Amino acid sequence: MKLATLRMDDGLHVARVHGDGYVDLGKGDVGELLADPDWRSRAAAGGTYVERRPGDLAPVIPRPGKIVCVGLNYRTHIAEMKREVPRHPALFAKFPEVLIGPYDVLTLPPESAAVDWEAELVVVIGQRVRRADKASAQAAIAGYTIMNDVSMRDWQFRTSEWLQGKTWEATTPLGPYLVTPDELAPDATIQCTVDEERMQHSTVDDLLFGPVDLVEYISAMVTLNPGDLIATGTTGGVGHARTPPRYLRDGQTLVTEIYGIGAMANQVRCETT
Amino acid sequence: MKLATLRMDDGLHVARVHGDGYVDLGKGDVGELLADPDWRSRAAAGGTYVERRPGDLAPVIPRPGKIVCVGLNYRTHIAEMKREVPRHPALFAKFPEVLIGPYDVLTLPPESAAVDWEAELVVVIGQRVRRADKASAQAAIAGYTIMNDVSMRDWQFRTSEWLQGKTWEATTPLGPYLVTPDELAPDATIQCTVDEERMQHSTVDDLLFGPVDLVEYISAMVTLNPGDLIATGTTGGVGHARTPPRYLRDGQTLVTEIYGIGAMANQVRCETT
Repeated sequence: MKLATLRMDDGLHVARVHGDGYVDLGKGDVGELLADPDWRSRAAAGGTYVERRPGDLAPVIPRPGKIVCVGLNYRTHIAEMKREVPRHPALFAKFPEVLIGPYDVLTLPPESAAVDWEAELVVVIGQRVRRADKASAQAAIAGYTIMNDVSMRDWQFRTSEWLQGKTWEATTPLGPYLVTPDELAPDATIQCTVDEERMQHSTVDDLLFGPVDLVEYISAMVTLNPGDLIATGTTGGVGHARTPPRYLRDGQTLVTEIYGIGAMANQVRCETT
Repeated sequence: MKLATLRMDDGLHVARVHGDGYVDLGKGDVGELLADPDWRSRAAAGGTYVERRPGDLAPVIPRPGKIVCVGLNYRTHIAEMKREVPRHPALFAKFPEVLIGPYDVLTLPPESAAVDWEAELVVVIGQRVRRADKASAQAAIAGYTIMNDVSMRDWQFRTSEWLQGKTWEATTPLGPYLVTPDELAPDATIQCTVDEERMQHSTVDDLLFGPVDLVEYISAMVTLNPGDLIATGTTGGVGHARTPPRYLRDGQTLVTEIYGIGAMANQVRCETT
Protein backbone atom coordinates (compact mmCIF):
# COMPACT_ATOMS: atom_id res chain seq x y z
CA MET A 1 0.00 0.00 0.00
CA LYS A 2 1.22 3.49 -0.94
CA LEU A 3 -0.19 6.58 0.75
CA ALA A 4 0.12 10.23 -0.23
CA THR A 5 -0.75 13.65 1.16
CA LEU A 6 -2.41 15.70 -1.60
CA ARG A 7 -2.91 19.44 -1.88
CA MET A 8 -6.53 19.96 -2.90
CA ASP A 9 -8.72 23.04 -3.21
CA ASP A 10 -10.01 22.72 0.34
CA GLY A 11 -6.67 21.82 1.95
CA LEU A 12 -4.71 18.61 2.42
CA HIS A 13 -6.21 15.18 1.79
CA VAL A 14 -4.99 11.66 2.48
CA ALA A 15 -4.98 9.42 -0.58
CA ARG A 16 -3.99 5.90 -1.57
CA VAL A 17 -2.14 5.29 -4.82
CA HIS A 18 -4.38 3.29 -7.15
CA GLY A 19 -3.45 2.56 -10.75
CA ASP A 20 -2.60 5.82 -12.50
CA GLY A 21 -4.30 7.93 -9.85
CA TYR A 22 -5.40 8.06 -6.23
CA VAL A 23 -8.30 7.05 -4.07
CA ASP A 24 -9.19 10.14 -2.03
CA LEU A 25 -9.52 9.16 1.65
CA GLY A 26 -10.72 12.56 2.85
CA LYS A 27 -9.30 15.61 4.56
CA GLY A 28 -6.12 15.38 6.59
CA ASP A 29 -2.57 14.24 6.00
CA VAL A 30 -0.74 10.94 6.34
CA GLY A 31 0.77 12.00 9.68
CA GLU A 32 -2.70 12.62 11.12
CA LEU A 33 -3.89 9.29 9.72
CA LEU A 34 -1.07 7.43 11.50
CA ALA A 35 -2.16 8.91 14.83
CA ASP A 36 -5.29 6.75 14.57
CA PRO A 37 -4.50 3.20 15.84
CA ASP A 38 -6.96 1.96 13.22
CA TRP A 39 -5.05 3.67 10.37
CA ARG A 40 -4.47 0.52 8.32
CA SER A 41 -8.15 -0.16 7.79
CA ARG A 42 -8.90 3.53 7.18
CA ALA A 43 -6.11 3.58 4.58
CA ALA A 44 -7.58 0.56 2.81
CA ALA A 45 -11.09 2.06 2.57
CA GLY A 46 -12.89 3.13 -0.60
CA GLY A 47 -13.19 6.69 -1.88
CA THR A 48 -13.43 8.93 -4.93
CA TYR A 49 -10.89 8.39 -7.70
CA VAL A 50 -8.56 11.37 -8.30
CA GLU A 51 -6.14 11.91 -11.19
CA ARG A 52 -2.45 11.93 -10.46
CA ARG A 53 -0.71 15.29 -10.90
CA PRO A 54 2.81 15.46 -9.40
CA GLY A 55 2.51 19.06 -8.17
CA ASP A 56 -0.40 18.07 -5.94
CA LEU A 57 1.89 16.04 -3.70
CA ALA A 58 2.68 17.66 -0.33
CA PRO A 59 5.46 16.33 1.90
CA VAL A 60 3.90 12.97 2.81
CA ILE A 61 4.19 13.80 6.52
CA PRO A 62 3.83 17.61 6.46
CA ARG A 63 4.32 18.28 10.18
CA PRO A 64 6.27 15.48 11.87
CA GLY A 65 6.74 15.83 15.61
CA LYS A 66 10.40 14.89 15.24
CA ILE A 67 12.84 14.42 12.39
CA VAL A 68 15.81 12.39 13.65
CA CYS A 69 18.62 12.09 11.12
CA VAL A 70 21.51 9.66 11.04
CA GLY A 71 24.93 10.62 9.72
CA LEU A 72 27.52 8.31 8.20
CA ASN A 73 25.38 5.18 8.02
CA TYR A 74 26.26 3.69 4.59
CA ARG A 75 29.54 1.88 4.42
CA THR A 76 30.33 3.56 1.07
CA HIS A 77 29.66 7.09 2.41
CA ILE A 78 31.72 6.42 5.57
CA ALA A 79 34.62 5.46 3.28
CA GLU A 80 34.33 8.56 1.04
CA MET A 81 34.17 10.89 4.04
CA LYS A 82 37.32 9.11 5.32
CA ARG A 83 35.73 8.22 8.68
CA GLU A 84 36.10 5.09 10.78
CA VAL A 85 33.16 2.69 10.97
CA PRO A 86 31.24 4.03 14.00
CA ARG A 87 30.10 1.93 16.95
CA HIS A 88 27.04 4.14 17.47
CA PRO A 89 24.87 6.06 15.01
CA ALA A 90 25.56 9.82 14.85
CA LEU A 91 22.20 11.55 15.35
CA PHE A 92 21.09 15.08 14.59
CA ALA A 93 17.78 16.84 14.01
CA LYS A 94 16.00 18.77 11.32
CA PHE A 95 13.09 21.02 12.18
CA PRO A 96 9.77 20.40 10.37
CA GLU A 97 9.97 23.78 8.56
CA VAL A 98 12.60 22.28 6.25
CA LEU A 99 10.14 20.08 4.35
CA ILE A 100 8.92 20.58 0.79
CA GLY A 101 6.89 18.32 -1.49
CA PRO A 102 8.44 15.76 -3.85
CA TYR A 103 7.88 17.95 -6.93
CA ASP A 104 8.25 21.40 -5.36
CA VAL A 105 10.93 23.88 -6.37
CA LEU A 106 14.04 23.61 -4.19
CA THR A 107 15.17 27.16 -3.52
CA LEU A 108 18.87 27.79 -2.87
CA PRO A 109 19.24 30.36 -0.08
CA PRO A 110 21.68 33.16 -0.93
CA GLU A 111 23.43 32.63 2.42
CA SER A 112 25.00 29.35 1.27
CA ALA A 113 27.39 28.61 -1.59
CA ALA A 114 27.56 24.86 -0.94
CA VAL A 115 24.14 23.20 -1.14
CA ASP A 116 24.56 19.43 -1.49
CA TRP A 117 22.37 16.35 -1.99
CA GLU A 118 21.87 13.32 0.29
CA ALA A 119 19.38 10.67 -0.86
CA GLU A 120 17.96 8.83 2.17
CA LEU A 121 15.56 6.09 3.12
CA VAL A 122 13.20 7.34 5.84
CA VAL A 123 11.51 5.23 8.51
CA VAL A 124 8.00 6.49 9.34
CA ILE A 125 6.74 5.65 12.83
CA GLY A 126 3.18 4.33 13.07
CA GLN A 127 2.90 3.47 16.75
CA ARG A 128 4.04 5.13 19.95
CA VAL A 129 7.10 3.36 21.31
CA ARG A 130 9.71 3.83 24.06
CA ARG A 131 12.58 1.47 24.89
CA ALA A 132 11.65 -0.82 22.05
CA ASP A 133 13.04 -4.32 21.69
CA LYS A 134 13.44 -5.76 18.18
CA ALA A 135 9.82 -6.95 17.98
CA SER A 136 8.23 -3.71 19.18
CA ALA A 137 10.62 -1.67 17.01
CA GLN A 138 9.52 -3.64 13.98
CA ALA A 139 5.86 -3.22 14.94
CA ALA A 140 6.32 0.54 15.37
CA ILE A 141 7.38 1.04 11.75
CA ALA A 142 4.41 2.11 9.61
CA GLY A 143 6.53 2.11 6.48
CA TYR A 144 9.09 4.02 4.49
CA THR A 145 9.48 7.15 2.42
CA ILE A 146 12.33 9.13 0.81
CA MET A 147 14.07 12.33 1.89
CA ASN A 148 16.76 14.31 0.22
CA ASP A 149 18.62 15.57 3.29
CA VAL A 150 19.80 18.68 1.45
CA SER A 151 22.77 20.13 3.35
CA MET A 152 24.47 23.50 3.36
CA ARG A 153 28.05 22.25 3.74
CA ASP A 154 29.57 25.67 4.45
CA TRP A 155 27.23 26.07 7.44
CA GLN A 156 27.33 22.38 8.45
CA PHE A 157 31.07 22.51 9.11
CA ARG A 158 31.21 25.91 10.80
CA THR A 159 31.14 24.05 14.13
CA SER A 160 31.19 20.40 15.24
CA GLU A 161 27.38 20.31 15.30
CA TRP A 162 25.76 19.75 11.92
CA LEU A 163 22.28 21.15 12.70
CA GLN A 164 22.91 24.56 11.14
CA GLY A 165 23.81 22.98 7.79
CA LYS A 166 20.72 20.81 7.89
CA THR A 167 17.74 22.89 8.91
CA TRP A 168 17.23 25.54 6.25
CA GLU A 169 13.63 26.47 5.61
CA ALA A 170 11.86 24.68 2.72
CA THR A 171 14.90 22.88 1.33
CA THR A 172 14.27 19.19 2.15
CA PRO A 173 12.10 17.16 -0.27
CA LEU A 174 10.06 14.40 1.43
CA GLY A 175 7.91 11.83 -0.36
CA PRO A 176 6.46 10.96 -2.75
CA TYR A 177 4.65 8.24 -0.78
CA LEU A 178 4.60 6.33 2.45
CA VAL A 179 4.88 2.68 1.47
CA THR A 180 4.13 -0.17 3.85
CA PRO A 181 7.08 -2.48 4.59
CA ASP A 182 5.86 -5.19 2.18
CA GLU A 183 6.49 -2.79 -0.76
CA LEU A 184 10.21 -2.34 -0.03
CA ALA A 185 12.70 -5.05 -0.98
CA PRO A 186 15.54 -5.52 1.56
CA ASP A 187 18.08 -4.70 -1.18
CA ALA A 188 16.11 -1.90 -2.87
CA THR A 189 18.14 0.47 -5.04
CA ILE A 190 18.58 4.07 -3.81
CA GLN A 191 19.70 6.67 -6.31
CA CYS A 192 20.21 10.39 -6.72
CA THR A 193 20.72 12.18 -10.04
CA VAL A 194 21.40 15.82 -10.91
CA ASP A 195 20.32 16.68 -14.46
CA GLU A 196 20.23 12.95 -15.20
CA GLU A 197 23.86 12.47 -14.10
CA ARG A 198 23.93 9.68 -11.55
CA MET A 199 25.53 10.97 -8.35
CA GLN A 200 24.53 8.36 -5.77
CA HIS A 201 23.66 4.74 -6.36
CA SER A 202 23.51 1.99 -3.75
CA THR A 203 21.16 -0.48 -2.12
CA VAL A 204 19.55 0.02 1.26
CA ASP A 205 21.16 -3.17 2.59
CA ASP A 206 24.47 -1.23 2.68
CA LEU A 207 23.08 0.52 5.81
CA LEU A 208 25.23 -0.02 8.88
CA PHE A 209 22.36 0.60 11.34
CA GLY A 210 19.10 -0.60 9.83
CA PRO A 211 15.55 0.65 10.49
CA VAL A 212 14.86 -1.69 13.42
CA ASP A 213 18.25 -0.95 15.03
CA LEU A 214 17.53 2.78 14.80
CA VAL A 215 14.06 2.56 16.34
CA GLU A 216 15.57 0.56 19.22
CA TYR A 217 18.46 2.99 19.67
CA ILE A 218 16.49 6.24 19.49
CA SER A 219 13.54 4.99 21.55
CA ALA A 220 15.94 4.18 24.39
CA MET A 221 16.17 7.94 24.92
CA VAL A 222 12.86 9.37 23.79
CA THR A 223 9.35 8.27 22.86
CA LEU A 224 8.76 7.92 19.13
CA ASN A 225 5.25 8.92 18.09
CA PRO A 226 3.16 8.25 14.97
CA GLY A 227 4.42 10.44 12.13
CA ASP A 228 7.92 10.84 13.55
CA LEU A 229 10.62 10.37 10.93
CA ILE A 230 14.03 8.73 11.07
CA ALA A 231 16.18 9.64 8.07
CA THR A 232 18.61 6.74 7.95
CA GLY A 233 21.63 8.48 6.39
CA THR A 234 23.01 8.81 2.90
CA THR A 235 25.18 6.71 0.66
CA GLY A 236 28.37 7.57 -1.23
CA GLY A 237 28.47 10.17 -3.99
CA VAL A 238 27.65 13.46 -2.27
CA GLY A 239 28.96 16.59 -4.01
CA HIS A 240 31.08 17.74 -1.08
CA ALA A 241 33.26 14.60 -1.20
CA ARG A 242 34.07 15.02 -4.91
CA THR A 243 37.27 16.52 -6.32
CA PRO A 244 36.59 19.30 -7.00
CA PRO A 245 33.45 19.55 -4.83
CA ARG A 246 30.15 19.97 -6.66
CA TYR A 247 27.03 21.68 -5.37
CA LEU A 248 23.51 22.36 -6.61
CA ARG A 249 23.07 25.20 -9.11
CA ASP A 250 20.20 27.27 -10.43
CA GLY A 251 18.25 25.47 -13.16
CA GLN A 252 19.23 21.90 -12.28
CA THR A 253 16.80 19.08 -11.56
CA LEU A 254 17.44 16.89 -8.53
CA VAL A 255 15.91 13.42 -8.69
CA THR A 256 15.87 11.18 -5.62
CA GLU A 257 14.49 7.67 -5.89
CA ILE A 258 14.22 4.34 -4.11
CA TYR A 259 12.93 1.36 -6.02
CA GLY A 260 9.59 0.31 -4.53
CA ILE A 261 8.83 3.72 -3.04
CA GLY A 262 9.01 6.05 -6.05
CA ALA A 263 10.87 9.14 -7.16
CA MET A 264 11.00 12.85 -6.32
CA ALA A 265 12.02 15.46 -8.90
CA ASN A 266 12.82 18.94 -7.59
CA GLN A 267 13.82 21.84 -9.78
CA VAL A 268 16.57 23.94 -8.25
CA ARG A 269 16.25 27.73 -8.28
CA CYS A 270 18.22 30.56 -6.73
CA GLU A 271 16.19 32.45 -4.16
CA THR A 272 15.30 35.96 -5.23
CA THR A 273 15.00 38.02 -2.05
CA MET B 1 5.61 40.88 34.00
CA LYS B 2 6.06 37.20 34.90
CA LEU B 3 3.90 34.52 33.30
CA ALA B 4 3.45 30.88 34.28
CA THR B 5 1.74 27.75 32.98
CA LEU B 6 -0.17 26.11 35.83
CA ARG B 7 -1.49 22.58 36.17
CA MET B 8 -5.06 22.87 37.41
CA ASP B 9 -7.86 20.36 37.85
CA ASP B 10 -9.26 20.99 34.39
CA GLY B 11 -5.89 21.13 32.57
CA LEU B 12 -3.28 23.82 31.98
CA HIS B 13 -3.94 27.49 32.67
CA VAL B 14 -2.00 30.65 31.89
CA ALA B 15 -1.31 32.80 34.93
CA ARG B 16 0.49 36.02 35.85
CA VAL B 17 2.62 36.17 38.96
CA HIS B 18 1.03 38.61 41.41
CA GLY B 19 2.31 39.09 44.95
CA ASP B 20 2.49 35.71 46.68
CA GLY B 21 0.20 34.04 44.14
CA TYR B 22 -1.11 34.19 40.60
CA VAL B 23 -3.81 35.85 38.58
CA ASP B 24 -5.48 33.04 36.61
CA LEU B 25 -5.81 34.10 32.98
CA GLY B 26 -7.80 31.05 31.87
CA LYS B 27 -7.19 27.80 30.09
CA GLY B 28 -4.17 27.30 27.87
CA ASP B 29 -0.42 27.62 28.25
CA VAL B 30 2.08 30.41 27.78
CA GLY B 31 3.11 29.05 24.37
CA GLU B 32 -0.47 29.26 23.12
CA LEU B 33 -0.79 32.76 24.58
CA LEU B 34 2.27 33.96 22.64
CA ALA B 35 0.69 32.79 19.37
CA ASP B 36 -1.87 35.59 19.80
CA PRO B 37 -0.37 38.86 18.46
CA ASP B 38 -2.33 40.61 21.22
CA TRP B 39 -0.69 38.48 23.95
CA ARG B 40 0.69 41.42 25.95
CA SER B 41 -2.71 42.91 26.69
CA ARG B 42 -4.24 39.48 27.37
CA ALA B 43 -1.38 38.77 29.80
CA ALA B 44 -2.05 42.04 31.64
CA ALA B 45 -5.78 41.37 32.08
CA GLY B 46 -7.58 40.72 35.37
CA GLY B 47 -8.61 37.31 36.70
CA THR B 48 -9.18 35.17 39.76
CA TYR B 49 -6.42 35.10 42.39
CA VAL B 50 -4.80 31.66 42.84
CA GLU B 51 -2.41 30.58 45.62
CA ARG B 52 1.14 29.72 44.68
CA ARG B 53 2.10 26.05 45.03
CA PRO B 54 5.41 25.12 43.34
CA GLY B 55 4.24 21.68 42.15
CA ASP B 56 1.50 23.33 40.07
CA LEU B 57 4.05 24.79 37.68
CA ALA B 58 4.28 23.06 34.30
CA PRO B 59 7.15 23.75 31.90
CA VAL B 60 6.34 27.39 31.07
CA ILE B 61 6.21 26.52 27.34
CA PRO B 62 5.02 22.89 27.44
CA ARG B 63 5.13 22.15 23.69
CA PRO B 64 7.57 24.45 21.90
CA GLY B 65 7.75 24.04 18.12
CA LYS B 66 11.53 24.15 18.30
CA ILE B 67 14.18 24.03 21.00
CA VAL B 68 17.44 25.35 19.57
CA CYS B 69 20.39 25.00 21.93
CA VAL B 70 23.75 26.70 21.83
CA GLY B 71 26.94 25.01 22.96
CA LEU B 72 30.07 26.66 24.32
CA ASN B 73 28.70 30.18 24.61
CA TYR B 74 30.08 31.39 27.95
CA ARG B 75 33.69 32.42 27.94
CA THR B 76 34.28 30.60 31.26
CA HIS B 77 32.76 27.30 29.97
CA ILE B 78 34.73 27.52 26.71
CA ALA B 79 37.89 27.78 28.82
CA GLU B 80 37.06 24.81 31.10
CA MET B 81 36.21 22.59 28.11
CA LYS B 82 39.59 23.65 26.64
CA ARG B 83 38.08 24.89 23.39
CA GLU B 84 39.00 27.85 21.25
CA VAL B 85 36.66 30.86 21.21
CA PRO B 86 34.33 30.02 18.29
CA ARG B 87 33.52 32.34 15.40
CA HIS B 88 30.03 30.88 15.08
CA PRO B 89 27.61 29.47 17.65
CA ALA B 90 27.46 25.66 17.80
CA LEU B 91 23.77 24.75 17.51
CA PHE B 92 21.94 21.54 18.34
CA ALA B 93 18.36 20.56 19.12
CA LYS B 94 16.35 19.05 21.93
CA PHE B 95 12.95 17.53 21.23
CA PRO B 96 9.96 18.86 23.23
CA GLU B 97 9.49 15.53 25.05
CA VAL B 98 12.53 16.38 27.19
CA LEU B 99 10.73 19.05 29.21
CA ILE B 100 9.63 18.82 32.84
CA GLY B 101 8.29 21.45 35.21
CA PRO B 102 10.50 23.59 37.45
CA TYR B 103 9.64 21.57 40.60
CA ASP B 104 9.13 18.14 39.03
CA VAL B 105 11.24 15.11 39.91
CA LEU B 106 14.19 14.69 37.56
CA THR B 107 14.48 10.98 36.84
CA LEU B 108 17.91 9.55 35.99
CA PRO B 109 17.54 6.97 33.19
CA PRO B 110 19.33 3.68 33.94
CA GLU B 111 20.96 3.83 30.49
CA SER B 112 23.29 6.69 31.52
CA ALA B 113 25.93 6.84 34.23
CA ALA B 114 26.90 10.46 33.56
CA VAL B 115 23.96 12.84 33.93
CA ASP B 116 25.25 16.40 34.24
CA TRP B 117 23.83 19.90 34.82
CA GLU B 118 23.89 22.98 32.57
CA ALA B 119 22.11 26.11 33.84
CA GLU B 120 20.98 28.24 30.89
CA LEU B 121 19.21 31.46 30.04
CA VAL B 122 16.48 30.79 27.47
CA VAL B 123 15.17 33.25 24.89
CA VAL B 124 11.42 32.82 24.26
CA ILE B 125 10.19 33.93 20.84
CA GLY B 126 7.02 36.03 20.79
CA GLN B 127 6.72 36.96 17.14
CA ARG B 128 7.28 35.09 13.88
CA VAL B 129 10.58 36.15 12.34
CA ARG B 130 12.85 35.12 9.46
CA ARG B 131 16.12 36.76 8.44
CA ALA B 132 15.90 39.20 11.32
CA ASP B 133 18.05 42.29 11.58
CA LYS B 134 18.97 43.60 15.05
CA ALA B 135 15.73 45.55 15.46
CA SER B 136 13.38 42.77 14.37
CA ALA B 137 15.38 40.23 16.39
CA GLN B 138 14.90 42.38 19.48
CA ALA B 139 11.20 42.79 18.72
CA ALA B 140 10.77 39.02 18.29
CA ILE B 141 11.91 38.29 21.86
CA ALA B 142 8.90 37.88 24.16
CA GLY B 143 11.12 37.39 27.16
CA TYR B 144 13.29 34.94 29.03
CA THR B 145 13.09 31.80 31.09
CA ILE B 146 15.51 29.21 32.55
CA MET B 147 16.44 25.70 31.40
CA ASN B 148 18.69 23.16 32.93
CA ASP B 149 20.06 21.54 29.77
CA VAL B 150 20.60 18.23 31.57
CA SER B 151 23.07 16.17 29.52
CA MET B 152 23.96 12.50 29.42
CA ARG B 153 27.70 12.91 28.85
CA ASP B 154 28.38 9.24 28.05
CA TRP B 155 25.85 9.39 25.20
CA GLN B 156 26.72 12.97 24.18
CA PHE B 157 30.28 12.02 23.32
CA ARG B 158 29.58 8.67 21.63
CA THR B 159 29.72 10.54 18.30
CA SER B 160 30.53 14.07 17.16
CA GLU B 161 26.84 15.02 17.31
CA TRP B 162 25.58 15.92 20.77
CA LEU B 163 21.83 15.35 20.20
CA GLN B 164 21.77 11.87 21.75
CA GLY B 165 23.19 13.18 25.02
CA LYS B 166 20.66 15.99 25.10
CA THR B 167 17.24 14.65 24.25
CA TRP B 168 16.30 12.15 26.96
CA GLU B 169 12.62 12.07 27.80
CA ALA B 170 11.47 14.16 30.77
CA THR B 171 14.92 15.24 31.98
CA THR B 172 15.07 18.99 31.17
CA PRO B 173 13.56 21.43 33.68
CA LEU B 174 12.08 24.59 32.09
CA GLY B 175 10.68 27.57 34.00
CA PRO B 176 9.60 28.72 36.44
CA TYR B 177 8.35 31.81 34.56
CA LEU B 178 8.52 33.68 31.32
CA VAL B 179 9.68 37.17 32.28
CA THR B 180 9.45 40.12 29.93
CA PRO B 181 12.80 41.72 29.00
CA ASP B 182 12.36 44.62 31.45
CA GLU B 183 12.60 42.13 34.37
CA LEU B 184 16.08 40.85 33.45
CA ALA B 185 19.18 42.94 34.24
CA PRO B 186 21.89 42.75 31.55
CA ASP B 187 24.32 41.38 34.14
CA ALA B 188 21.87 39.08 35.96
CA THR B 189 23.44 36.29 38.01
CA ILE B 190 22.98 32.72 36.78
CA GLN B 191 23.64 29.91 39.22
CA CYS B 192 23.32 26.17 39.65
CA THR B 193 23.62 24.29 42.93
CA VAL B 194 23.50 20.59 43.79
CA ASP B 195 22.46 19.96 47.42
CA GLU B 196 23.26 23.63 48.11
CA GLU B 197 26.83 23.28 46.82
CA ARG B 198 27.38 25.99 44.24
CA MET B 199 28.45 24.38 40.96
CA GLN B 200 27.93 27.17 38.42
CA HIS B 201 27.93 30.90 39.05
CA SER B 202 28.24 33.62 36.44
CA THR B 203 26.43 36.56 34.93
CA VAL B 204 24.55 36.46 31.64
CA ASP B 205 26.76 39.22 30.21
CA ASP B 206 29.55 36.59 29.94
CA LEU B 207 27.63 35.22 26.90
CA LEU B 208 29.68 35.28 23.71
CA PHE B 209 26.61 35.35 21.43
CA GLY B 210 23.78 37.25 23.12
CA PRO B 211 20.01 36.82 22.66
CA VAL B 212 19.71 39.28 19.76
CA ASP B 213 22.74 37.80 17.97
CA LEU B 214 21.22 34.32 18.26
CA VAL B 215 17.80 35.33 16.91
CA GLU B 216 19.55 36.95 13.95
CA TYR B 217 21.80 33.95 13.34
CA ILE B 218 19.17 31.22 13.64
CA SER B 219 16.46 33.11 11.75
CA ALA B 220 18.82 33.36 8.77
CA MET B 221 18.17 29.66 8.26
CA VAL B 222 14.69 29.01 9.59
CA THR B 223 11.58 30.86 10.71
CA LEU B 224 11.30 31.32 14.46
CA ASN B 225 7.70 31.12 15.70
CA PRO B 226 5.99 32.22 18.93
CA GLY B 227 6.89 29.79 21.70
CA ASP B 228 10.12 28.61 20.09
CA LEU B 229 13.00 28.46 22.56
CA ILE B 230 16.68 29.30 22.22
CA ALA B 231 18.74 27.90 25.10
CA THR B 232 21.76 30.16 25.07
CA GLY B 233 24.39 27.79 26.47
CA THR B 234 25.86 27.14 29.88
CA THR B 235 28.57 28.69 31.97
CA GLY B 236 31.59 27.11 33.70
CA GLY B 237 31.24 24.53 36.45
CA VAL B 238 29.62 21.52 34.80
CA GLY B 239 30.30 18.18 36.47
CA HIS B 240 31.94 16.60 33.45
CA ALA B 241 34.76 19.17 33.43
CA ARG B 242 35.66 18.56 37.09
CA THR B 243 38.52 16.38 38.34
CA PRO B 244 37.28 13.81 39.07
CA PRO B 245 34.05 14.27 37.07
CA ARG B 246 30.85 14.60 39.08
CA TYR B 247 27.35 13.64 37.99
CA LEU B 248 23.84 13.76 39.42
CA ARG B 249 22.93 11.09 41.97
CA ASP B 250 19.74 9.71 43.46
CA GLY B 251 18.42 11.87 46.28
CA GLN B 252 20.11 15.13 45.31
CA THR B 253 18.35 18.44 44.72
CA LEU B 254 19.28 20.45 41.64
CA VAL B 255 18.57 24.17 41.87
CA THR B 256 18.87 26.37 38.78
CA GLU B 257 18.33 30.11 39.09
CA ILE B 258 18.70 33.42 37.33
CA TYR B 259 18.23 36.60 39.28
CA GLY B 260 15.13 38.38 37.98
CA ILE B 261 13.54 35.23 36.56
CA GLY B 262 13.37 32.92 39.56
CA ALA B 263 14.54 29.47 40.60
CA MET B 264 13.77 25.85 39.78
CA ALA B 265 14.35 23.05 42.31
CA ASN B 266 14.25 19.51 40.98
CA GLN B 267 14.70 16.43 43.13
CA VAL B 268 16.83 13.77 41.47
CA ARG B 269 15.66 10.16 41.54
CA CYS B 270 16.86 6.96 39.90
CA GLU B 271 14.31 5.60 37.47
CA THR B 272 12.71 2.37 38.60
CA THR B 273 11.77 0.45 35.47
